[in-house]
Amino acid sequence: MEKKIRTINSLNTRSFSAHLDEVVLRNGVRGKRIRIDHPESAAVIPFVSNSEILLVRQFRYALGRETLEIPAGKVDPGETPDECVKRELHEETGYRAGEIKYLYTYAPAIGYSNELIHIYSGHGLKKIDDKIDDREISDVERLSLEQLNALIKKGDILDGKTIIGLSIMEIMSSNL
Amino acid sequence: MEKKIRTINSLNTRSFSAHLDEVVLRNGVRGKRIRIDHPESAAVIPFVSNSEILLVRQFRYALGRETLEIPAGKVDPGETPDECVKRELHEETGYRAGEIKYLYTYAPAIGYSNELIHIYSGHGLKKIDDKIDDREISDVERLSLEQLNALIKKGDILDGKTIIGLSIMEIMSSNL
Repeated sequence: MEKKIRTINSLNTRSFSAHLDEVVLRNGVRGKRIRIDHPESAAVIPFVSNSEILLVRQFRYALGRETLEIPAGKVDPGETPDECVKRELHEETGYRAGEIKYLYTYAPAIGYSNELIHIYSGHGLKKIDDKIDDREISDVERLSLEQLNALIKKGDILDGKTIIGLSIMEIMSSNL
Repeated sequence: MEKKIRTINSLNTRSFSAHLDEVVLRNGVRGKRIRIDHPESAAVIPFVSNSEILLVRQFRYALGRETLEIPAGKVDPGETPDECVKRELHEETGYRAGEIKYLYTYAPAIGYSNELIHIYSGHGLKKIDDKIDDREISDVERLSLEQLNALIKKGDILDGKTIIGLSIMEIMSSNL
């Protein structure tokens, strides 16, 4: 257990913040911790057929490069994760899901962030919009699960939630 | 592509920092981004037998709760990820690995961090120390892969790198 003494300084954007806290560590010594205070997020594995999904190509500023990942985003104030994931799918791909299924909730960066990501699969997809969110997304790609697996095997998928999404479907449907 | 104009403010600890940057977004509009500048990390799935691994129980300040996770830590300056993962295994569990195998590198929090986590499996473990790092670790637990799978199925494993570690072993050894 580590206890906060005070917040020394903070950084703020419209959607989340970072804080530098002075804390008392497990052994009684004082230390400093950076913590990101982040809203919950939701991500979706969007099935456009039984074996094919949609991925989005997106430039990630903190990482300084483009990634190929499942659609996702921050849950807005007053929104549920279910509503968020449908909105993000629409904004990022132009598709609406007839049905979403909840799969898992995990914490991506437990060392410095309280973010929780809720993962869903999306089914019964229909294209309802040709326009996508061009502030963030540079391309939408259609891949089979085999193609995505092959990209992971080559080490080409950097994004954690995309790997977890694919894996958690397997784990949840296994009989172990 | 998003380009940095300037860094407005920063938070610093000994091992990493957070920055608030003013940037130009894809569509030409100015915006703000928080980015964590983090060293690389390494994590290990430590096999104490063919079917059993070690997990550590640790209080995570940013999350405000205890988690059960594979041993991991930040790569020190001048250290390789291989060296880091052996050191962290020793510090957190008291065990030395006879052999480590590299599995994958992924980015846990691409929205706001440049952290990369290198994942390994550890084999030929020998206990060489009874003392563990009590600033961080409250307990070391021995679980079968079946037990860990069951915990994930119940939604009890919050830590992303632990789920990815288990999954990536499966993906890398599959014939797809």
